[in-house]
Amino acid sequence: MAYTVPAIEELVQALRQLPGVGPRSARRMAYALLERKRPAMGELAAALRRADETVSHCQRCNNLSDAPICGLCQSSRRDPRLLCVVETPADVAAIEATGTYDGFYFVLMGHLSPLDGIGPEALGIDRFEALLDQGFEEVILATNPTVEGEATAHFLADLVRMHGLRASRIAHGVPVGGELEYVDRGTLSSALSGRRAIED
Amino acid sequence: MAYTVPAIEELVQALRQLPGVGPRSARRMAYALLERKRPAMGELAAALRRADETVSHCQRCNNLSDAPICGLCQSSRRDPRLLCVVETPADVAAIEATGTYDGFYFVLMGHLSPLDGIGPEALGIDRFEALLDQGFEEVILATNPTVEGEATAHFLADLVRMHGLRASRIAHGVPVGGELEYVDRGTLSSALSGRRAIED
Repeated sequence: MAYTVPAIEELVQALRQLPGVGPRSARRMAYALLERKRPAMGELAAALRRADETVSHCQRCNNLSDAPICGLCQSSRRDPRLLCVVETPADVAAIEATGTYDGFYFVLMGHLSPLDGIGPEALGIDRFEALLDQGFEEVILATNPTVEGEATAHFLADLVRMHGLRASRIAHGVPVGGELEYVDRGTLSSALSGRRAIED
Repeated sequence: MAYTVPAIEELVQALRQLPGVGPRSARRMAYALLERKRPAMGELAAALRRADETVSHCQRCNNLSDAPICGLCQSSRRDPRLLCVVETPADVAAIEATGTYDGFYFVLMGHLSPLDGIGPEALGIDRFEALLDQGFEEVILATNPTVEGEATAHFLADLVRMHGLRASRIAHGVPVGGELEYVDRGTLSSALSGRRAIED
């Protein structure tokens, strides 16, 4: 019968829900907080609550946002001819960090994956289609260069062309099998500028 | 001018205070929580607040505890002749996990480190001395086998003997399951000099 303090065990279990944190790391984090970083505990708790309460999805682009329409969608300085489709909010952050792209975004929050029951409806494709009639000229498909990402891009390209717009795909300067979020800026920049039109 | 959501940036900064979490991991954690693990955010916030509010140090052994005197110090099933001195609460957990030791503990919350201004007072040595007069027979010094840990063990051993008790040090040697070839010289010399006769 090991001696345990319930509040500490509860904290360890809660920390384990963070991605990449196993039982040992979680315990190490809990002890570090309790022994040396008491102020960080309150700060992290407050930040978690605040983010949970204020952050939801932008009604236009679907990105994480603290307003009904996000600051990026409301910006008048972006190029109104370009729309870029990505899988996750982290991908938006990665593309923004390159400083190469100044159009708008649509965030799918995933990719088509019929085996997991993720069809077009789950990705908010109806909202995406509504966007297509708002004056864009080109839609850049920047889903991940994985099997599912490519399939999603092909599906969306058909949709885009049906609405009479140009569809393009970021260049395969991006390593195949990798994920946008972890690609270096230079590679991501050349992938954006080297995009090619998708032809039938 | 990158587009950012303040509540998300605040969460990323707060997560970076966890040990071993850099800027990329923190961002990945924040997005994972916001995109897929909303319930975990409230749970983690509650666990952090609860642990911060209820956990402090046991007035007897100095271990992390949710009561003035911890459950381990209050136990009547422990061997009242043995006291084990460790550096951190994690060391108590590690020793308890072996199931080999059933005496009491004293947690230093660090080690002597004169260069960093950590002297005997900072480690609560007065409380440790008060414990020495409570009927223990042997004090096991289980500080880390580092320079500071050894110095701390030597200092405490003198104190223990001054109170007429036996002082002992945990054995240093080859880790069980390890291979001689890969053990460092210091460990191998202690394993040799600390050799024990094999009895039938």
